Amino acid sequence: MTSLQHYLETRKKLKAYEYVMWLMSWDAETEAPKKSIEYRSKQLEVMAGEIYAIQSNETYVNAIETLFKELDTLEHDLQIEIKKEHRELRFIKKIPKDEYIAYQVLMSKSVHVWAEAKHKNEFSLFVPTLKEVLLYQRNLVKYLEEEHLKGYDLLLDMYEEGFTQKEYDFFFDTLKKELVDFVKEVTKHPKPLHPKLVTGTFDKEKQKAFSEYLLDVFYYDRERGLLKTSEHPFTSGVTSVDTRITTRYLEDNLASSIFSTIHEMGHGLYEIQNDPKYDDTYLHGGTSLGIHESQSRMYENMIGRSKAFWTVHYQKLQLIFSPQLDEVTLEDFMDYMNHSARTLIRVEADELTYALHIMVRYDIEKKLIAGDIEVEDLPQLWNDTYEAYLGIRPNTNTEGVLQDIHWSYGSFGYFPTYALGSAYGAQIYDAMSQAIDIEKAILENNIKVINDWTKEHIHKFAQTKTPKEIMMIATQKPFDPMHYVNYLKGKYNK
Amino acid sequence: MTSLQHYLETRKKLKAYEYVMWLMSWDAETEAPKKSIEYRSKQLEVMAGEIYAIQSNETYVNAIETLFKELDTLEHDLQIEIKKEHRELRFIKKIPKDEYIAYQVLMSKSVHVWAEAKHKNEFSLFVPTLKEVLLYQRNLVKYLEEEHLKGYDLLLDMYEEGFTQKEYDFFFDTLKKELVDFVKEVTKHPKPLHPKLVTGTFDKEKQKAFSEYLLDVFYYDRERGLLKTSEHPFTSGVTSVDTRITTRYLEDNLASSIFSTIHEMGHGLYEIQNDPKYDDTYLHGGTSLGIHESQSRMYENMIGRSKAFWTVHYQKLQLIFSPQLDEVTLEDFMDYMNHSARTLIRVEADELTYALHIMVRYDIEKKLIAGDIEVEDLPQLWNDTYEAYLGIRPNTNTEGVLQDIHWSYGSFGYFPTYALGSAYGAQIYDAMSQAIDIEKAILENNIKVINDWTKEHIHKFAQTKTPKEIMMIATQKPFDPMHYVNYLKGKYNK
Repeated sequence: MTSLQHYLETRKKLKAYEYVMWLMSWDAETEAPKKSIEYRSKQLEVMAGEIYAIQSNETYVNAIETLFKELDTLEHDLQIEIKKEHRELRFIKKIPKDEYIAYQVLMSKSVHVWAEAKHKNEFSLFVPTLKEVLLYQRNLVKYLEEEHLKGYDLLLDMYEEGFTQKEYDFFFDTLKKELVDFVKEVTKHPKPLHPKLVTGTFDKEKQKAFSEYLLDVFYYDRERGLLKTSEHPFTSGVTSVDTRITTRYLEDNLASSIFSTIHEMGHGLYEIQNDPKYDDTYLHGGTSLGIHESQSRMYENMIGRSKAFWTVHYQKLQLIFSPQLDEVTLEDFMDYMNHSARTLIRVEADELTYALHIMVRYDIEKKLIAGDIEVEDLPQLWNDTYEAYLGIRPNTNTEGVLQDIHWSYGSFGYFPTYALGSAYGAQIYDAMSQAIDIEKAILENNIKVINDWTKEHIHKFAQTKTPKEIMMIATQKPFDPMHYVNYLKGKYNK
Repeated sequence: MTSLQHYLETRKKLKAYEYVMWLMSWDAETEAPKKSIEYRSKQLEVMAGEIYAIQSNETYVNAIETLFKELDTLEHDLQIEIKKEHRELRFIKKIPKDEYIAYQVLMSKSVHVWAEAKHKNEFSLFVPTLKEVLLYQRNLVKYLEEEHLKGYDLLLDMYEEGFTQKEYDFFFDTLKKELVDFVKEVTKHPKPLHPKLVTGTFDKEKQKAFSEYLLDVFYYDRERGLLKTSEHPFTSGVTSVDTRITTRYLEDNLASSIFSTIHEMGHGLYEIQNDPKYDDTYLHGGTSLGIHESQSRMYENMIGRSKAFWTVHYQKLQLIFSPQLDEVTLEDFMDYMNHSARTLIRVEADELTYALHIMVRYDIEKKLIAGDIEVEDLPQLWNDTYEAYLGIRPNTNTEGVLQDIHWSYGSFGYFPTYALGSAYGAQIYDAMSQAIDIEKAILENNIKVINDWTKEHIHKFAQTKTPKEIMMIATQKPFDPMHYVNYLKGKYNK
């Protein structure tokens, strides 16, 4: 068998394993019975072992290396894929197997330890585990370091290719300069919101009916995906013909399910609109976390929270919740879902303050990976940084340093992509509005026009373009954070 | 590695593959998006190939054979398992691999061909495919035949160990003698049913609320299972900590969801109440289709349709459907859900006529496998046999020979277990009523007492006892169809 044949045959196999791992995780997050956790973990461990064995099989590794040397002989997309897979080999070749396996075992427990510490508001419970996770991440950096990619940069680049501290420092410095004082100003005199929106109780079945309605509005193809509920909303796609999303219905928060649903549809549309020719390859999916988030944030905030959108759809919401919203005007609703406030919890933060929450985490991660601070320093530093950027201070670690799950499963370098995604989104939106009349499309309830544009300029490429290439294709210029700043200032100055 | 070590290690692996195959099928039946079928089929084929490779691996096969020779050295449950697995080897050793694989490919298409033929009411569309399926089954019989197990007997024994034509002939002859005329007599003058039950429209959300209520009534543990919807109700279990059931809500049929839910809970309780020590072995699950069906039928018909049951729960049903059922009395409801009629469709048949539908299929299958008739003869024979046993004749093949899916995926010998299960159920119920006061348990809304008995006398054994052994343990005597006949006559004579 040639290297290419061997590669393609193994890929076919690994795609099947990818599929079952995806399905196990989807099931666990959305419906698996509580007491089945331990049983499922055992099966998952076996499957993970099978995958590791196939991926690290010498013949397969050699096939990738051979093909990498003969890149020119391959067709274009396959060249990109082989480059990507060749780079992935570093994880198998440079990390000692024992350490890798010990880390997997640690991962299967660390999230639970974090959850308990958060629940009990006891940071000290989490300290030993977080130290282990951090140690592994620091070692990982050492194993994988290259001449031009060291320390925290290596982790950042893993989540967003081509983005290191240099780029992020510039980005966050711009935000600091432009937004920190602006946010304080905007949030100083909050406009009173309609009490029926703020203190109302909203029937979950009715919220569900509206979310299902939104699927049609956004042309989310139910034959290639579905909407379900889970504790935290997420998107889970495995092929362009199977990309599922979840939302959650909170009785005391009408906005939550609406904007979670639109947010996840933004993610989902990206993968549904991938060119299907990548379904059987490793190139299916979004090219980076940042570009992924640009789609969810753009659909959620720039389209979903716009005046045009609610001019068309507010009546439907009123109808479903009649008579509850009969006296609540469109303007009341606009004020409610676009109001801004400085609060402590990232996932509940509004569009304007969101990036400040991320800045806190970026500053801290940078110091943590560099070894400038240690795990014990986190609570104090966290609270101080919140005070500096947002002017507020957590009273507990539960609503402070323990609020996010990410560090517990070793995701350092992930947070910055959230803010970057919003900023990408603003720049992409500006470019799109040069090409099509977005407001008209929304007012005519024809979001398909928007989907067609995002498909053509972003989605269809799947992972064949880097984030920087996508920004050039979609906006004809490199990333520039001022689109985001101008968007936020324009919106919140009103 | 010793044979035992090798066996246990491979079993651990195969259990993980069993788990992912189970999950893929559960997902496909309950929620997977329509357009993902083809993609999923590809992944499923890869996984099936992996499983075949592991199962037919020489070292594994040798390990089973070695252990089979040293049975005495193994602990009791493992002896049973090794005997079972040793018998399973016949499929790998006696069926030519090419034929086996060609059959898998045929299976992936035949159900679709049947569905189309049924939809279009064109039996001829199904003929070539059914001929292929039948040919394989006839060949299978030849490959696997043993001195004392030939022809149709071999297939029957596959689904219900120890039950061959001899046992089934006696069973069905008894039913023919006792029930055919009785049914005609009972259904001659049907009692008019309350129009609000027969012609009403029943809100699906309310039906769902009642099914969820039933889960609590039957102590169906939501932390080890769940209730979902699907086109046809079924139970899908993979371990005692994960056994899921489905039902379906038909707006024009209130009884359908109620008794489907209870029926599937009967199946589900069997597997949830398996001793958990079998979870990681091949012995988890029900011992046979017949014993499985005995549990679903007993819970559905003998408990779920009893006067005692509705004396306790009818008020709840009225409350949920208030004011729709306000004027419908308990007696009206009892008449409605226990009425009998001679109809054409098996899955819609009532308790009394059900066995006659099965007799039709048993008679036909026997001739088909023996080669006494061919596929082309089926429609005529089907209609004639319905006329003989039920006194009615289908007008179309859709409501005749094409109604059931089973033959399309090669299940010959399966149907008889449905009738046998009901008959087992009656005998088991009689034995249980010697030991506990069933009616009292139901009236006190304490079905746990019943579950404890079924667990202790049937469920906990999982697959460690044969159907015949289970009947001896649970009822202290061999199977006797007269319990069933007497039960039906006692009930429908009233």
